[in-house]
This record gives sequence, C-alpha cells and structure tokens, in this order.
Amino acid sequence: MASSFGRLFRITTWGESHGGGVGVVVDGCPPRLKLTEADIQPDLDRRRPGQSKIVSPRKESDTVQILSGTFEGKTLGTPICLWVKNEDARPEAYLEMKEKFRPSHADFTYFAKYGVRNWQGGGRASARETVGRVAAGAIARKILLERFGVEILAYVKQVQKIIADVNPDKVKFKEVESNIVRCPDQTVAAKMVRLIEKMRRAGDTVGGIVEGVVRGAPPGWGEPVFDKLEADLAKAMLSLPASKAFEIGSGFGGILLTGRQHNDLFRARNKKVFTTTNFSGGIQGGISNGQTIFFRVAFKPVATVMHTQDTVDAAFRNTTLKARGRHDPCVLPRAVPMVEAMTALVLVDHALRHKAQCG
Amino acid sequence: MASSFGRLFRITTWGESHGGGVGVVVDGCPPRLKLTEADIQPDLDRRRPGQSKIVSPRKESDTVQILSGTFEGKTLGTPICLWVKNEDARPEAYLEMKEKFRPSHADFTYFAKYGVRNWQGGGRASARETVGRVAAGAIARKILLERFGVEILAYVKQVQKIIADVNPDKVKFKEVESNIVRCPDQTVAAKMVRLIEKMRRAGDTVGGIVEGVVRGAPPGWGEPVFDKLEADLAKAMLSLPASKAFEIGSGFGGILLTGRQHNDLFRARNKKVFTTTNFSGGIQGGISNGQTIFFRVAFKPVATVMHTQDTVDAAFRNTTLKARGRHDPCVLPRAVPMVEAMTALVLVDHALRHKAQCG
Amino acid sequence: MASSFGRLFRITTWGESHGGGVGVVVDGCPPRLKLTEADIQPDLDRRRPGQSKIVSPRKESDTVQILSGTFEGKTLGTPICLWVKNEDARPEAYLEMKEKFRPSHADFTYFAKYGVRNWQGGGRASARETVGRVAAGAIARKILLERFGVEILAYVKQVQKIIADVNPDKVKFKEVESNIVRCPDQTVAAKMVRLIEKMRRAGDTVGGIVEGVVRGAPPGWGEPVFDKLEADLAKAMLSLPASKAFEIGSGFGGILLTGRQHNDLFRARNKKVFTTTNFSGGIQGGISNGQTIFFRVAFKPVATVMHTQDTVDAAFRNTTLKARGRHDPCVLPRAVPMVEAMTALVLVDHALRHKAQCG
Amino acid sequence: MASSFGRLFRITTWGESHGGGVGVVVDGCPPRLKLTEADIQPDLDRRRPGQSKIVSPRKESDTVQILSGTFEGKTLGTPICLWVKNEDARPEAYLEMKEKFRPSHADFTYFAKYGVRNWQGGGRASARETVGRVAAGAIARKILLERFGVEILAYVKQVQKIIADVNPDKVKFKEVESNIVRCPDQTVAAKMVRLIEKMRRAGDTVGGIVEGVVRGAPPGWGEPVFDKLEADLAKAMLSLPASKAFEIGSGFGGILLTGRQHNDLFRARNKKVFTTTNFSGGIQGGISNGQTIFFRVAFKPVATVMHTQDTVDAAFRNTTLKARGRHDPCVLPRAVPMVEAMTALVLVDHALRHKAQCG
Repeated sequence: MASSFGRLFRITTWGESHGGGVGVVVDGCPPRLKLTEADIQPDLDRRRPGQSKIVSPRKESDTVQILSGTFEGKTLGTPICLWVKNEDARPEAYLEMKEKFRPSHADFTYFAKYGVRNWQGGGRASARETVGRVAAGAIARKILLERFGVEILAYVKQVQKIIADVNPDKVKFKEVESNIVRCPDQTVAAKMVRLIEKMRRAGDTVGGIVEGVVRGAPPGWGEPVFDKLEADLAKAMLSLPASKAFEIGSGFGGILLTGRQHNDLFRARNKKVFTTTNFSGGIQGGISNGQTIFFRVAFKPVATVMHTQDTVDAAFRNTTLKARGRHDPCVLPRAVPMVEAMTALVLVDHALRHKAQCG
Repeated sequence: MASSFGRLFRITTWGESHGGGVGVVVDGCPPRLKLTEADIQPDLDRRRPGQSKIVSPRKESDTVQILSGTFEGKTLGTPICLWVKNEDARPEAYLEMKEKFRPSHADFTYFAKYGVRNWQGGGRASARETVGRVAAGAIARKILLERFGVEILAYVKQVQKIIADVNPDKVKFKEVESNIVRCPDQTVAAKMVRLIEKMRRAGDTVGGIVEGVVRGAPPGWGEPVFDKLEADLAKAMLSLPASKAFEIGSGFGGILLTGRQHNDLFRARNKKVFTTTNFSGGIQGGISNGQTIFFRVAFKPVATVMHTQDTVDAAFRNTTLKARGRHDPCVLPRAVPMVEAMTALVLVDHALRHKAQCG
Repeated sequence: MASSFGRLFRITTWGESHGGGVGVVVDGCPPRLKLTEADIQPDLDRRRPGQSKIVSPRKESDTVQILSGTFEGKTLGTPICLWVKNEDARPEAYLEMKEKFRPSHADFTYFAKYGVRNWQGGGRASARETVGRVAAGAIARKILLERFGVEILAYVKQVQKIIADVNPDKVKFKEVESNIVRCPDQTVAAKMVRLIEKMRRAGDTVGGIVEGVVRGAPPGWGEPVFDKLEADLAKAMLSLPASKAFEIGSGFGGILLTGRQHNDLFRARNKKVFTTTNFSGGIQGGISNGQTIFFRVAFKPVATVMHTQDTVDAAFRNTTLKARGRHDPCVLPRAVPMVEAMTALVLVDHALRHKAQCG
Repeated sequence: MASSFGRLFRITTWGESHGGGVGVVVDGCPPRLKLTEADIQPDLDRRRPGQSKIVSPRKESDTVQILSGTFEGKTLGTPICLWVKNEDARPEAYLEMKEKFRPSHADFTYFAKYGVRNWQGGGRASARETVGRVAAGAIARKILLERFGVEILAYVKQVQKIIADVNPDKVKFKEVESNIVRCPDQTVAAKMVRLIEKMRRAGDTVGGIVEGVVRGAPPGWGEPVFDKLEADLAKAMLSLPASKAFEIGSGFGGILLTGRQHNDLFRARNKKVFTTTNFSGGIQGGISNGQTIFFRVAFKPVATVMHTQDTVDAAFRNTTLKARGRHDPCVLPRAVPMVEAMTALVLVDHALRHKAQCG
C-alpha cells in the first residue's frame, strides 16, 4: 500500500538495492501511446550512479525492460511492468552494517519497524528504489507533453551556499543538461562542481536545492481541500530520499511581504487571464491558474560519509562505524530526474482526474 | 475523492462557507473511545473567528453536533458524522464578488475548473472548511494520547520577521495558550500581537510560521517510499489554506551543513536508542526514530486586504475590486489548531497502519 | 473506510437507525448538474417504510436535505452532503435486545467485533443505512440519463416460488411502479401481494429475487481483472442488507449449457456490433459490450419474525426472544430502489473512469 | 488501478498471455514470515495448464521467481514482486484473431474500450493473468494458517448436472486433491471426468460450480455496509475469468424458505456462541460469526470451442471463425486454486483491517 502513488495514473514500485532488481508497475496509462524502452532509458541514464565524477560510482547499466502492457510499440491500457536488474551487488561491502546502524540512515528505523532488514545496502530505503519512479515518470512526461502540451523541468538551484540565477519561465532542458551538476546557470555550475569535488576528496557530502517547473498546464488542474496540487507535489517531493523541505512560489520568503505586496493581481488580454506577479507559484486554492508552476525542494547532505562516526549496534550497544558503501558526495545532479519524475506523476494524475470529473 | 484524507482513520469533510453548514465524516475510528461534543468543542473554539482582537471578526459559535457513530458516550466503530451550522451568512457582502475574481483567492481557479462557483464567500475554498478537519483532529488527538501516549502540539514560531525561541522537546500547551497569538515565547508574543494589530489598522495582512511537534511517538511509525511520515505531513500541511512551505528537522537550513555535521549520531542507554542531535526531525527513511518530531509550515499573508486592487471580472475584462469580506489580519493564531489537527490525523493513521502490518 | 463506495464518484454513508439521522457525502460529482431535493426525494419515497400494506410500518417521512455541494440549484463539483433525520425512534421497543442477540441479525457479530453496539434497532446494520445509498443513487441515475443516455431499472422478479415473466430489454419504469410489489408482470404481481399479506398475517417473512437492468451503456465501460463491471455489481449487491446471491446473464443456469450453446455470436449491421443471444448479460471480460446488462439478486426472508425463537444473551447464556421491531414481511418492494441505486453508483463510477483513461 | 485488489494486503497483477511474462506485486505483507518459492510453486502447479488430460494442454512450467521483498528466507515487510515467464508463446496460432473477434471472449470489448489489443491470445483477459493471483494467494493462505489458524479450501461441487455431496465443515484437502477434477466426492468425481473427456472429444466445453470454504475464522472479521465480507468475496469471485454467479450460505435456494425456517438460532456452550443451522454461511451483517464460511461460484463453459462460429471482424463485417487456441474443455479443476487464492486474499485483508481498528 505504501509503495503506490497516484489515483488514476497509479504506480507501484518494488525492489531492494540488493536482490533480483527494482521496478515499477504503472496502472491506468492511456492506451495507444507510442512507448518502447528507448523512451524510458534516457531518464534512467540521468538518474544512474557512475554518470560523472561528482556522483556515486556504483557501476550499473540500469537497462530497463518492459515486461508487460505494450504491444507492437504501443501501450495497451493494461499495467506496464518495468524491470531493471541489480548488477553491482557487493554484499561483502556491507558486512559490518549487518550488526551496526549507520547514522542518519534508515537502518535503525527499519529494524524498529519490521524486526528484520536487508543489511546489504539500504535495501528498500536505498535511492535505487527511485529507478522505478524515474521509469514511470518518463511515461508520465511523455503523456503530458504529447497529449496536453505540458512541459516538466527541474534543475539544481543551490548547492550549499552557492545559488544559481534561473528564470523558471524560460530555462531550457539543454541548458540544464549542458553540465554535470545540472545547473543551467553555467558560471555558478562550475563553482558547484568544484565544491562537490572538494567534498568528495574530503570524504564528506553536501546538500542543496532542486527547483521544479511545470509550464503549459491549463487553469483548472488540481483539487480543493486535501488533494491540492501543491499538497500532492509536497508529498511527492518529501517522499524522495534525503529531501527535507518543500516550498511553492514565494514559499518561506513570502512571509516577509504583507498581503498587499504578496497578492498576484489578475489582468486579462484577449480574453486570457494572467497574473502580473507569480508569488502563488501557479496554483491558487489547490488548482492551477495557468501561470508557470515552480517549487523548490531541499536535499540534505548524503548521510554516507567516509569517516568513523559514533553509532549503536543491533544489540543496542554503543560502537563506531566507518561507512564502506559507495560515496556519493552530492545527490543533487541525480535528484533532478527524480524531481521531474515525481512532478510528472502528480501532474498526469491530476490531468486525468480533471478529465474524469470536469472534462 | 479529493475531500478525503487518511487510509485507516479516514475523514471526509464537506460544506461551503455559505449554505447548510460544514462537517466531517470520520470512518475507521476505534470502538469504545469515550467521546462527546465536549471533547471536540474546545479545539473548534480555538479555530473559530472572533476569539480575539487579532483574528477575523466573523460571528459564529461553531457549535458541533455528533450526528452518528456514538452511543451512550462511546464510539461504536461506525462512521462519526460531525456537523457545524453556518450562522454568519451575509451573502450581500459578497455581491461584487459574483462578477469579480479576488486576487490570490481561488475564485478564478474554481471558475476555470468547474464553470460554476459559490460566490458567497470562499465557498469550499474558505478556511471554514477546516472546521471539519479540526473536529476530526480532536478525535485523533484523543486516541493518540489515551491509547498510544503520543502528544501533539503546535504554536506560532514566527510572524513576518519576528522569531520566537521555543524548545520543541519541552514547550507546554498552557504556554501556547497563554496569549492570543499562540506563541509560547511570551516576550516575542507581545511583539507579534502589536505587529498584527498594526496590520489590521492598515487594512493589510501578515504571514509567518507555525511549528508542529509530536512527542512520544515510538520508533517504527511511518512507511518506506511514498507514504513516508514526513511526506504525509507535508501533504497535510500544504493542504491547509494559505500554506506555502513545509520543512522537517533541519529543513532548508540543513543544506548549509556537510554530511559529517548533519548526521545524527546514535547512542544507547539502558537498551534504549537515541540520537545526540535531531537534524532528522525524528524521522529517518520515512519512519519515526523515537525522537521528537518537529516541522515548520509557512503561511502567506491572507489575501483579503482592505484596499482596492486590480483584477478581472467573470467576462475576463480588467477591473478593480475592494474586498468586503471579514478582514483577518493574520491567520496564524487560528492555524495552530489546524496544524495540530492535520498532524494528529497523519499520526493516528500511521499508528493504525503500523498495528495492522507489524503489530 | 468501510463506509465508502466508488473510486471517482465516491459516496460515504453514515448514521444509525437511532440517533441524529442517516446521510451520505457524495464526492466527485460533475459540476453544473441541476440538482435539488426534488430530484432525490422520489427514490427515497420508494425506499421508505410505510409506503404500502406489504412493507414495514415504521413511520418516517424520510425528508432529505442538501447540506452542501449545490448553489442556485446546480452542483458545484464539491462534496454533496445529504441528510435525513430519524423520526420514529422508539428505543423502548428494543429494550429486550439490549441483552439478547436476535437470530440471523448482526447483533452478535457487531458485539463480537466492536465490543459495543447500539441496541436500539439495528444501528448501523439497519436497512435504514440504505437511505444514504438511495439518495446518492438518485444523483448517479440523473447523471447517467442526462449525460450518457443510460437507463437504470430494477423490479421484483420472484417472490418465493412465484416467478414473473419480464423482458429486460423492454420493461418500462411505469410498469414496475404500477403495483405495490414493484413487479411489472401484473398477473404475477397480484399473486405476490397475496403471498406477502399471508406472511404478514402469519408473523412470518418471505424472500425473493430482484432483477436489475442497465440499458444504453456503450461498449467499453468496465475494467479488466479486478474491477470488472460484473465484479463491482456483485460487490454492490452483496453489500445490500439481506442479499445472499448474485448472478449475471445466464448465471447459475448457464452451467447447464455447453460452450457451443452458451456463446453469444457477434453480428454486425450498419457498422454496429451486436450479439444474437445475451447469455453474457451485456458484459464480456469485465467490459460492457453494448447489449442490455441484466442480473439477479437474491434477498433472504427478513430475519425479524413475530415468534419466539431460541437465542443467547450478552452473557452467552441460552434464552429465547420474541422480536418487537417493525415487522417487514418482505423486503423486496423496498429493495428495488436500493438495487437501482447501487447499480447507478457502479455505472457512473465506471463511466467516469473510462472517460479518464480512454476518453 | 483496476489491477489492484485489497486495502491492507494489496496485490497488483500485471502481464499478458504473450509478452515478457505475468506477475504480481504484494504490498503490505507482514514481516518475518518464512517465504521462499517453494511455498508458492505448489499452488501454481495446481493452476497451470497441462497438469492432466482434462485441462488445457498449454505447455508452461510456470516457475515462479521472487524478485524482491524477502531476505534470507523471510519477508521484509516491503513489496514482494513475483514473476513467471511466458514460455508457450505461439503467436502464429492466433493470426486469424488479429482481424476477428472470438465470440464470448473479451476481444471485442477490449477493442471497443482501448482501440488496441494484444491479439496473440487473450492478452490481459487470458486466464494466465490469474498466475499472479494464485501466487499472491499462496502467501495469504500461509499467513492465515500460521498467524490466525484459518484454513481455506475449495473444490468442484458441480459439473453441468452432476452434483457432488460434500460437507464443508469436514472435507479435507487431500480428498480434493485425490483426483484430477478436484471433487472430494470420489464416485461423482469419476462421472465428472468422463463428462469432461466427452466434451473434449466433441471439441466442446462444459461449466459448473466451485464451492469455497473458510474454517476457523473468529467472530468479528468483516465490515458493516460496503465492505461486507460476503460483498468482498462476491467481487473477488466475479473478478475471476468465466465466473457468472456467486451465492453465500443458503444463496438462491434460501428464498424458498420463510424467515422462521431460515433464521440460524444461536446457542451457547461453555461461553462459546454457535448457530444450530448455517443458512447465513458464516457471515451476518457482513461480519463473520465464527461458523464455517462457505459459498458457491458458477463458471460458464469456456468460450473457446473447436467449431466454426459466426462472428464479426475488426472492420465490423460479418464473418466466421474457428478457434485455434488451446482447447480447455473445463476450467473447473484449475479454478479451484483460483477460488482459494481470492478467498485467502479477502480474508487476510479483513484480518489485518480488524487488527488495525479493533485489535
């Protein structure tokens, strides 16, 4: 139950970092969408470890297979099962973790909850679980673009104190992809890369902010009350590993303004309504207003550091531990496709919900 | 569908600001819980307008009636329907809104979505909808306290630039309730009240931050992947009217630290595990770790200001509008019971889910 | 959770037979549907006790009130809360039931499950709960007729051994309503009435079969696998009080034929596909094929008989009990609107689901 | 969405008869259950084609692989993905079906719904989809037996007009498995086998009834109103391919009795409540009463017959078709494990739901 997301475009991910692989079942996909592995693999390549010098070196090709739900290159309307094998299983690297809980990882809480855990890596809590999300998100993005004209984008906005200057209304995908940190502000991107490399050398890690953008969503998507568009986005983002915060539009900064300053005034031109500012971030009362939707997600510094740290063991005795897992100095470049995927999943679900009730 | 929240302790709110009233159906409540209107009314009184000089003056007693689900003062295990009549209906105050969209309200987006709207106040988008949430939340809090020993608390942490100093591990309910702004830092509270009064006199509004706290939750509540405890809290908070941001534990601030600095080290004492810091905010991998859970929610300044502002009308022509609804200079004091209610609803749902799978 | 039905057109009923009343919240209703109490009351009148000499004499007007979700006579797209007060509360009639479990009622099982029960009548297990279903079903029928051209109908097909001859493709609503037993075969209807009256005089009860019909559903509604149209209908019908069986199309009788005899052969005329027989009952592989959908539901004889019967008390001692509740000699005439309501709820939900994924 | 079943023990099946295989994701399984492929394979072997001379000769080993959710032979509490490869893909056998709709199959309705279909066999509508159900059901049965002491059983009760005499309270699994038709009445079983062989030789098919039994369920499982235990069983059974009817306890036959005759009288012995008859089939008001639960499911004769029949093609022109798929003269022996699986899935879900709310 906990492994499903969405109501009408509903995904269920499965798999641990070590074992038979990771994957996802996508239920509710519209039929007759052109779809092959080639539509999905590029986003997985952007998510996978080992893609550059500033991310985790885990060696896996992350090659996706479609096991069901398509026929002759088109979706059938039936569940699409996507599978990626685990290749880089090195259980011996984790032997010490069998008896010790890594600080700020989920080892202790999983053990407290289930009384059992897969100690070979993060198990279900590993970022490897997001393979299924990104694969499903690639399908969602395709539907949004081809059937609704909606574009999803994300990029690194901030690494520690280094902040990029980006215009959510205009930034382009190729600008994001033009450097390994996935920050479209090229000058700042170079600084970010240097900081991350410094961290890697120090065996330490660093966090930051990914900004997500939705362009072209029509007014009317989203729901009043609990399933507000921003509420579903917030849940989607806080469900990503290492995320700690979410803000939409003006976010925390908006509280420094008064109501008069903060209100987005409506204007009309050619019978089309727009706002002169966009503190709302494209959503009002939980429903899209036709402006660009944008939001920011904070990712903490990755917990795996290459230093000895205090912790406790499975018998609840004090001890120390030096992590031996893959060192990922900064999750942000790989978090970009994750944020895009979750955004697309939220948006396509609301697009279908809107069609059902109001279409 | 959009008006329901929770999986096992599931609430469905209904009602508009003008019409037969507002209410909630609570399905899945454990049986044999002592429950009368007297358990619910106090939280509604903390939520209702007109309770002090710094909140909306709308005059309603907000008296709750239990229509079903209890017998001889105890819950039956069947759906509990709670109803609060609307009393302060003044549709004439809203006549101008019939033809004009208020800036940064949901008037335009509701019209875009549904092609129809109740223009007598905010309709379904009114904060009045939260009556049902707060009523249901009172039941959830009672279950958490009586059956699980878990305490829920919230308070105003910041109003515009005025920041309170509060210890989430120690703050007491009576400290929160000892002033009208619901800030337990008494010196700072007085400053907040003065600022809000100034805003009221200026016909303007101000926003800020509410901090929510959960104490006594055992390790093991929450779920991996999508229904992480912090993800459900984020959704719950972003579903509240006027909220724009959510952060748990270190939140946005955590990105300024490195991984070594940010990790919460485990220690054990008498076979009990704890952490020496709490940047995680009591949740790791989506599951509670036994430490205090705390998070912050940003509420924007209320959109209804007593000034003429540019906007468009229902025919999509440019015009101006001066709001005539109730002037609520700051939503924060009334947001405190809303945050508590949503927190309790998330926690009790996860408590029951944990019992089902792992109990 | 257990009190909700439907995914996109989702209803939640609440209320006990004694207490503040019974009702329903309808979430997901399309906006701009003309709707007032006058659209709902007629079906409630067909459901209520006291409408004729052959049904329960409980005296209640069952007057429905719309508490939310409409404005100026149209639906808003927000939750519609419908409420019917309880009027005929006679708790003293049930005093003996406080200590004794009525045979073949839910008194014992509710007590076993919850450890508490409302002994003043059937509580939540009373057929009175179906008020909410019938009220919601009236809205569903209106949508199906006005927006999809689909007609829902039900009638009494059999009372004990008395079987009516009815053509599901042609039977008319006014034929059903032309007699108090709601059987469109007028000759047989008179016999049914005589049998029921005889039962009433004997203080006994009798069961039978209600047939449900859906005409005008296009090919393509319903889902493969679990949410097959007939599966959802089966659940809907078996959720009605006193129902014991469901069959679609050829049903149990179909097993007497061989595959060659049972297959419905396709033919085409003017590019329109039809079948020459309809053993499938209008559904193939869980999805409507454009033919008339028809099914039968068996209702057992009502458990409340006016005779002393063996039973046990709340202390689990053997005793006897003579029921003093209202004597309802045959539930069938009142079950007709219940079957229609549940059928409409299933169909409208699938209509919206189809629109979302394939529309 | 349509491919998921259950609320707390939630399964999602995926896969078509031709393609990468079929499988299931099981979410919500309690942790620390001993589980390997050896616990699942036996039920798949009872389901698979080719197991005897009276069932479909399709040649597949149906070997199950656990891809996730277990570690060192125990469940982790995370999603369990089970996969069975397709081996007997013979698309050429289906070439004619590419252009023609088989009578009483789902070819036409799938095409009407989705505008596309996998014509290589039944695709998603193939009974092969039940591989996932039976695999998940094996886990559910294990939990029910080991953690709740509840036993699930099913057997062939009737083939066309041949009816077996079986006592649901006493029948044993080995009696069911002692012959290839899975009917525990050995004399009658032999007659059934002869009839099915006769049908096979005639290129025709025959249907019948499977009876399902639950023994040892405590009083209190199930829910009032919509999620009644019998309602969920009815949905589960009608979701199986080829099923047309469901009855619980006295079922359709119960309508021949009067209320006095039909009531199950309560008696108590040693503070334990039981009923002297069991027309209710072990469920009252939707909730188990501690007696044996039993019900019957009708399966129509399989639609694939080895004869030329009228039909239409994809251009909606009249034509004829002679099926060339595998000839399965009687689905009943293979339906037995399907009925058991769906029963177990319903029961385990309600067991967990009961624990959550009332445990």
